[in-house]
Amino acid sequence: MVNAEYPHWQTVPLRWKDNDVYGHVNNVVHYSVMDTVINTWLIERGGLDIETGGVIGLCVESQCKYHASVSFPGELEVGLRVDHLGRSSVRYEVGMYSKETVIAEGRFVHVFVDRESRRPVPVEGLLRSALEELRTGLG
Amino acid sequence: MVNAEYPHWQTVPLRWKDNDVYGHVNNVVHYSVMDTVINTWLIERGGLDIETGGVIGLCVESQCKYHASVSFPGELEVGLRVDHLGRSSVRYEVGMYSKETVIAEGRFVHVFVDRESRRPVPVEGLLRSALEELRTGLG
Amino acid sequence: MVNAEYPHWQTVPLRWKDNDVYGHVNNVVHYSVMDTVINTWLIERGGLDIETGGVIGLCVESQCKYHASVSFPGELEVGLRVDHLGRSSVRYEVGMYSKETVIAEGRFVHVFVDRESRRPVPVEGLLRSALEELRTGLG
Amino acid sequence: MVNAEYPHWQTVPLRWKDNDVYGHVNNVVHYSVMDTVINTWLIERGGLDIETGGVIGLCVESQCKYHASVSFPGELEVGLRVDHLGRSSVRYEVGMYSKETVIAEGRFVHVFVDRESRRPVPVEGLLRSALEELRTGLG
Repeated sequence: MVNAEYPHWQTVPLRWKDNDVYGHVNNVVHYSVMDTVINTWLIERGGLDIETGGVIGLCVESQCKYHASVSFPGELEVGLRVDHLGRSSVRYEVGMYSKETVIAEGRFVHVFVDRESRRPVPVEGLLRSALEELRTGLG
Repeated sequence: MVNAEYPHWQTVPLRWKDNDVYGHVNNVVHYSVMDTVINTWLIERGGLDIETGGVIGLCVESQCKYHASVSFPGELEVGLRVDHLGRSSVRYEVGMYSKETVIAEGRFVHVFVDRESRRPVPVEGLLRSALEELRTGLG
Repeated sequence: MVNAEYPHWQTVPLRWKDNDVYGHVNNVVHYSVMDTVINTWLIERGGLDIETGGVIGLCVESQCKYHASVSFPGELEVGLRVDHLGRSSVRYEVGMYSKETVIAEGRFVHVFVDRESRRPVPVEGLLRSALEELRTGLG
Repeated sequence: MVNAEYPHWQTVPLRWKDNDVYGHVNNVVHYSVMDTVINTWLIERGGLDIETGGVIGLCVESQCKYHASVSFPGELEVGLRVDHLGRSSVRYEVGMYSKETVIAEGRFVHVFVDRESRRPVPVEGLLRSALEELRTGLG
């Protein structure tokens, strides 16, 4: 854990292909890191079944501010919190750090929908409680 | 050209790997598409030399709103405009369409820096005029 | 069409993210290009339904020899042929060219399986005839 | 360490984006994993300087056989050995495992070249000794 601003942390090692022509991790990769950390939590703690479950999370908005560069080889320490949990949607905030330096800060909004109809459904049960665990009391 | 809201258009065909488990283009891919269309313009029209040029563009902020899904096989029609051009930075707006339907709208901010020092430098000459061409008069 | 060695050709434009630290398209990308061209053919000509069809193609072996480098911005002209078509499997050969220069040559083996059981199934009907069209008489 | 067939092991966690439409890690990803493990070794043990060093490693051939599928979330245990070390080139063998099951086996050939001229150079010094460490006595 890098700091107490985020209730959950996951380490994401970098890959050779993450570096771009300028020798640092490309701006696109940070979104892949966010997606990975968020979905790992949803699957392992929230019971999300990405293969056959009736409810899936669709990204409707994402954003990232880049403060410093980082390069492979290395890893990102990624903090995750929920700053708003609505009936069918959730907004996450993600902090990406390397050696205690903040590299980037992202936001990511999921709307949970029915896999077939792709219409919003209420966030309930295990999924809701897993997201509640990530709340910081600010949302 | 899909519409007149963007002065420049480029077609980006999708790839097999763009689809994720849910069968549609993953939210990360839209950022790779933005990066591609912006840099193609900078290289072909703005004289950006990504290999050896003294000035490079670093992404300091990006954002995307997703309105509809799209899947491989297929392609995105991508519109590009500049909504703010400062001394060292530029903010682009990117519209991604499929068959005249807006799929996603992105924002992307470049700061131009010296390749070695990574300190901001003024946007001048060919690079500036290429970016001016993308302005819509709104910025 | 670059040459007559391949019965089918598709152009694949490069993306910013395809270039790696060394300024050229990373060796991993060529496999993504192969996957894209092969699956485009299977979907558009062979009736492959990647979302809900009962039969899917799994890659069991792939290979690539790299002859020259290529960089974004640019595109690959990709030739596709079938050099062996068995009961349940097919071996493709893929030629990747830039401006008439051969960049890389790949091989890719698909085994067609039942989506649920993942057991091999015979290649029949439209799928088989689409693959037959790509044969060069050498297999 | 999964077994003694490989002198070096590295764990590579999977990412959300590694899964494709069929719900398992796409065949392209295995090459990115190989590239990552090989270059991590070269940088950390062989003194390879990917940013400014005079010598770089170019992939001239790669290959992979896929034995079983694996999915995010999860990780690959990756074994690395050298089965041939020549004057300017090296051939690696890579075993990718998940929970003691072999998922895929790859081969990857690097030719070391001068960064500017891109002409082959002899593998010497720290780089050579790092590669010697990976030899299994079979090459």
